[in-house]
Amino acid sequence: MLKQKLENVRKSTPLIHNITNYVTVNDCANILLACGGSPIMSDDIMEVEEITSICGGLNINIGTLNQSTIKSMLVAGRKEKELNQPVFLFPLCTGASKLRTDTVHKLLEDINFTVIRGNISEIKALAFGTGTTKGVDADVADAVADSNIENAIRFAKEFARKTNAIIAITGAIDIVADENKAYVIRNGHPMMSKITGTGCMLTAMIAAFVVANLDCHLEATVAAVCAMGLCGEKAFERLNEKDGNASYRNYIIDEVFNLDGDALDRGAKYEIR
Amino acid sequence: MLKQKLENVRKSTPLIHNITNYVTVNDCANILLACGGSPIMSDDIMEVEEITSICGGLNINIGTLNQSTIKSMLVAGRKEKELNQPVFLFPLCTGASKLRTDTVHKLLEDINFTVIRGNISEIKALAFGTGTTKGVDADVADAVADSNIENAIRFAKEFARKTNAIIAITGAIDIVADENKAYVIRNGHPMMSKITGTGCMLTAMIAAFVVANLDCHLEATVAAVCAMGLCGEKAFERLNEKDGNASYRNYIIDEVFNLDGDALDRGAKYEIR
Amino acid sequence: MLKQKLENVRKSTPLIHNITNYVTVNDCANILLACGGSPIMSDDIMEVEEITSICGGLNINIGTLNQSTIKSMLVAGRKEKELNQPVFLFPLCTGASKLRTDTVHKLLEDINFTVIRGNISEIKALAFGTGTTKGVDADVADAVADSNIENAIRFAKEFARKTNAIIAITGAIDIVADENKAYVIRNGHPMMSKITGTGCMLTAMIAAFVVANLDCHLEATVAAVCAMGLCGEKAFERLNEKDGNASYRNYIIDEVFNLDGDALDRGAKYEIR
Repeated sequence: MLKQKLENVRKSTPLIHNITNYVTVNDCANILLACGGSPIMSDDIMEVEEITSICGGLNINIGTLNQSTIKSMLVAGRKEKELNQPVFLFPLCTGASKLRTDTVHKLLEDINFTVIRGNISEIKALAFGTGTTKGVDADVADAVADSNIENAIRFAKEFARKTNAIIAITGAIDIVADENKAYVIRNGHPMMSKITGTGCMLTAMIAAFVVANLDCHLEATVAAVCAMGLCGEKAFERLNEKDGNASYRNYIIDEVFNLDGDALDRGAKYEIR
Repeated sequence: MLKQKLENVRKSTPLIHNITNYVTVNDCANILLACGGSPIMSDDIMEVEEITSICGGLNINIGTLNQSTIKSMLVAGRKEKELNQPVFLFPLCTGASKLRTDTVHKLLEDINFTVIRGNISEIKALAFGTGTTKGVDADVADAVADSNIENAIRFAKEFARKTNAIIAITGAIDIVADENKAYVIRNGHPMMSKITGTGCMLTAMIAAFVVANLDCHLEATVAAVCAMGLCGEKAFERLNEKDGNASYRNYIIDEVFNLDGDALDRGAKYEIR
Repeated sequence: MLKQKLENVRKSTPLIHNITNYVTVNDCANILLACGGSPIMSDDIMEVEEITSICGGLNINIGTLNQSTIKSMLVAGRKEKELNQPVFLFPLCTGASKLRTDTVHKLLEDINFTVIRGNISEIKALAFGTGTTKGVDADVADAVADSNIENAIRFAKEFARKTNAIIAITGAIDIVADENKAYVIRNGHPMMSKITGTGCMLTAMIAAFVVANLDCHLEATVAAVCAMGLCGEKAFERLNEKDGNASYRNYIIDEVFNLDGDALDRGAKYEIR
């Protein structure tokens, strides 16, 4: 099932407009190329409408938001709404500042997001307006585990219904849900939290997968989440004793580059709830 | 012939001022160091004149231009004109927005560029004011091939005459021309298009090569283009079955770091037209 | 002695707020993760006070300063002063422009820095208001060597007294001093100057080490400087004949990731003066 989603990315080379943070932007560009997409980064208000119009979708990442780029996010997102093109949101560190919380609420008001992806603390901050975000990592108290998974699934479906977006909550266990259906995904490796940008890279990949598979947003998102997690596993196996997080980052992108549809279908670990 | 150009970079350590995009800026800095140059990045209007004055040349890349950096590009470029120092332009994605097209035309009006480098779609958009740019890649219909190379050479020489700049059009086949003489270069590897920033890195390298070889701008540009392509070939040979585009990026910079003048002369594939 | 400093970073996962340049920001984030810290990058004036309040310390790097981020540096730094939290400064290329010189003087006036780290030219420019900075590298005439080390130590202690900060001057020989005591450190490898960002990465690491060891700022800084140098040595040993500066960068971060406290104590080369 997931194989076709990946192959559609490679066949159609979806062009993704990214308004994203300057920390992980290079990795986002390279992982988009690795999976078969094509990246363009642009954030000036004078051009974002035109840029987003020549792209297949828009990826908004508030990582290093500022007052200029916030305006560009809104303008570009409204343009995509007008064009009926998919828009993606990574509400990075929502809850860590009023500026972030206000910005994501304004974005949610004005833009119809196709997929919203974050860690559980970020998605909770988005849903409830408050958060316990400790920097870029999810709060331990929030973490999705087998003991609270029913609640987490219910929360994801309910927030998907409310926002009319697919909600992707990623962590040790990932949940990808629309209002009716949730996928619980168990790919990935704990060491992925030791490199910066796995969440940013994954959100960019989701954009490419959804734009290349417009008839099945949910499964396309699942394919991207499984692909990222599986590549994290395979990259971990490749590590030698001298390798650390810098090599691991490169190996993950390399694995995405070399990922084959059959391997994705074999390696994906998900159940439907 | 090219060997001496590379050795002059290593001997003189040209300091290059870069006003460049935040996507590939780290790779530009590292490839400048790899070839023997020294990078400085600075884009605030309050300091760009001073910064550019202590450097040997200025590399302008409009990749993630914004209204502040556009002003800085103009101010820094005019300062270089006053100082009679070389200025380099990568008109990234020109044609993709009115802001980009207007900006490059304003830059061309105010600044005497020494070398302008882009893919064929970008250079055409620059020359004709319109373009078919699809994101960061050249339009397939534009691509330079053996069947249309005479036209492409004529176009490059004519645009070089009009702008009084060396025109470097890179792709599967590269053309580097002034108004009288064109070099057709056949180094490189198709996988180079699968990493972000090869064009940005090459333009930064051209800046270092020209600044270190002020008596032969054209040949210095040719040396940088051949060096980049050759390093792309050598890095490709180094790839093992698990390597992908992230490792490839690192290997290309590594190859530039280790490139020896004799290997450059042996590996460069060019003809004069 | 240094072992405990590293282990405290790994145990406490200090969250570091970075207002830093866009050239090396990804490497700073990854090296913070590698040593056991956690990075957050944020530079908009509307949120820096809140962000810095949830962090353990603030790392200010003026590499690609602009008029917006300068204001944010001042606001965030004053907030840390109010909270009595440590603040760190890398006065990158101070002396290269009036904007840089004015900015660092304003920062010194308003903020109590815990550690100031730079190359000798940058620290001299900071202390004397003028400089001979040639881009990102120290001026050869300034370099700390065995022949002038007494003067350099005296200068470092005196400037530490004047600023009430720990002064870390790094180069072939490093000096880390407060007003009473100086450590002379001889770790590192010359090839570290061939990658962009070693200074930025080190300053970020110092922030993590100090925040995790609040009772011994000086020794924590020494531990970070020795760790970076030692990892530069070990990464150099790992290089094969095809590796260049890009691989070297990755290997340094990898070595930090894998660094063990005992290895740090065994490999650190310092004397107290």
